[in-house]
Amino acid sequence: MIEVEDRGRVRVLRLARPPVNALDPALLARVAGEIHDAPSAGIGACVLTGSPGMFSAGLDVVHLLGLDRDGLVSALGTFFDAMEALAASRLPVAAAISGHAPAGGAILALFCDWRVMAEGDFIIGLNEVQIGLPMPDVVAGLLSRTVGYRHAEELAVSGRLLTPAAAAAIGLVDEVAPADAVLERALAWCEGIVRLPARAVAATRATTRSDLIELVRRSRSADVERLSREWEHPEAQAVLRATVDRLKSRSAGR
Amino acid sequence: MIEVEDRGRVRVLRLARPPVNALDPALLARVAGEIHDAPSAGIGACVLTGSPGMFSAGLDVVHLLGLDRDGLVSALGTFFDAMEALAASRLPVAAAISGHAPAGGAILALFCDWRVMAEGDFIIGLNEVQIGLPMPDVVAGLLSRTVGYRHAEELAVSGRLLTPAAAAAIGLVDEVAPADAVLERALAWCEGIVRLPARAVAATRATTRSDLIELVRRSRSADVERLSREWEHPEAQAVLRATVDRLKSRSAGR
Amino acid sequence: MIEVEDRGRVRVLRLARPPVNALDPALLARVAGEIHDAPSAGIGACVLTGSPGMFSAGLDVVHLLGLDRDGLVSALGTFFDAMEALAASRLPVAAAISGHAPAGGAILALFCDWRVMAEGDFIIGLNEVQIGLPMPDVVAGLLSRTVGYRHAEELAVSGRLLTPAAAAAIGLVDEVAPADAVLERALAWCEGIVRLPARAVAATRATTRSDLIELVRRSRSADVERLSREWEHPEAQAVLRATVDRLKSRSAGR
Repeated sequence: MIEVEDRGRVRVLRLARPPVNALDPALLARVAGEIHDAPSAGIGACVLTGSPGMFSAGLDVVHLLGLDRDGLVSALGTFFDAMEALAASRLPVAAAISGHAPAGGAILALFCDWRVMAEGDFIIGLNEVQIGLPMPDVVAGLLSRTVGYRHAEELAVSGRLLTPAAAAAIGLVDEVAPADAVLERALAWCEGIVRLPARAVAATRATTRSDLIELVRRSRSADVERLSREWEHPEAQAVLRATVDRLKSRSAGR
Repeated sequence: MIEVEDRGRVRVLRLARPPVNALDPALLARVAGEIHDAPSAGIGACVLTGSPGMFSAGLDVVHLLGLDRDGLVSALGTFFDAMEALAASRLPVAAAISGHAPAGGAILALFCDWRVMAEGDFIIGLNEVQIGLPMPDVVAGLLSRTVGYRHAEELAVSGRLLTPAAAAAIGLVDEVAPADAVLERALAWCEGIVRLPARAVAATRATTRSDLIELVRRSRSADVERLSREWEHPEAQAVLRATVDRLKSRSAGR
Repeated sequence: MIEVEDRGRVRVLRLARPPVNALDPALLARVAGEIHDAPSAGIGACVLTGSPGMFSAGLDVVHLLGLDRDGLVSALGTFFDAMEALAASRLPVAAAISGHAPAGGAILALFCDWRVMAEGDFIIGLNEVQIGLPMPDVVAGLLSRTVGYRHAEELAVSGRLLTPAAAAAIGLVDEVAPADAVLERALAWCEGIVRLPARAVAATRATTRSDLIELVRRSRSADVERLSREWEHPEAQAVLRATVDRLKSRSAGR
């Protein structure tokens, strides 16, 4: 589900759950676990990437629709575990966004320290509102600290998805590169980091992200409670099921 | 004083108090009232606009100079009512800035979700300091969440007014358009919103604006007290009365 | 150590401690003192500048390495005095960044209201991590309020130093100008300020900087304690002493 490859002191974590790297609890637990384990192996920085053309399509809605309330609460908990692991790691993490990154895919990327996205007909953004779900507090805070309140508010309320160039223009990603250069760009960013005094890097990352770590921990309980409740609301269920039907008929048509 | 026109599920609120849409307590109460009432009529978003060439010149200084301390406190209270209504509405509001928008005019626009401003020889900005008034906490917070602390601080301390292009360059407005296209651009932004699941939009707006709603409510009492006190200070009175004399002689010269 | 020159109602403070305007406790105390004294002399704004090609190389590491723990705590206290003086002054301060401004040099400039930097082969940035020191809370907060969390985090963790153009692109400085025009540009910014009602300017500066003043005061004790402890850590001492040796051999080679 995740392919791990060390390139010197940089560890590459590649999401590999076909066809769209949908984030189910097992994959999210692996993300959290790999991020937790990386520092002990002498690694100085990580790259999080996906498959060609697909970073991650976000939470696995088909899986989640099959769960009862307790199962949903537990699944959302693993998402918070992955977010907290990325927020609080000793090691900087660069996101090599290899393709589409809507919703949960964008969220994982935004928890990284630096983002490069593949050029091409790809989208990134926080489209929760389009599928009938309110934006969680943790995502609203994450988005506003990345692109500022003005863009965050407009993106959240409209649910707009952006091209790589539009994302770079407002700082949702830091750089756009040809698809076959995205991993190398992320590795180059990491090479700059692993040359630095490790203790100072870890302490500095903890200082500049103290607001983010606090945000994840503070939001967790209320966000999980609200999301699992809103998930069951008829408005959300109707949109979610229509979305899944559309995805299934599209797959069947291939 | 306000012209109301529904365009499908979008309600257009047009400030119409000649000659400059000066914000007196009656007009501010109407703004607050219209924003409060809009959701109950099946409307999904609003546009706030002004007259050709003039969005609003800001608070009605001539009116305010005729009030005693109690009257001033009450008038400033209606300004806070209008700000809070815009901040906390269930419905997104786009500002179609049809012309000049200094001081209070800029503030109303900045409480909206998205701003398009008319091209031309118009100005927008927070020039309170130029007329001898300290910037209220609510405006300082509003400005820094819109354009960031760096620009907010410099604009506040210098009282600089900006052209539409300069405003767009720093994010004080989101877009500049020909004067006769400004309303259509704002309507188009709203059309994108009214197609979305309404419950998710309202919840997401409340989440991404929770800081702004809190700011208005928290600032109100101290800001009104300080502004009404500073208003009476000789430095402020001298500048205010000179400003009004200049406006009157300009009108007389027409 | 500081040359003072009044240009009308604008006071120019020029760092003048050859060869690199290194910030030792005596110079920092002078900065704090001059900023404190300026308002009483009828001055309406200040310019802080340096020598041709060198704004300030930052804290005087050679001096600090000769101090015991108490001396270090005391020296860092004078740095906080200078930061607090700039944050809380009644008068706006423009930085005319006449050349290099790494580390402590950048920090002094970032506490000013507006920054213009000389074109040329100069660098500015927060490279603490490169010399083995964690970024203090006060600097992390200062940096994120100036350039936003996204850039702040990346600059802090990487310790990257920027060219004037790169600094302007992300808002670390407000403007770049030819080296011989930098002082005039800063004076022109100040001329715009001294024309305004002084009481309103002072109150507005206090309002828009209340977060910054609070940040300096809140961070002081823990930052000084942590920095003086981390300073003695072998990782930091090794990098610091290697840096000083490199500087000395470079001087000897001249």
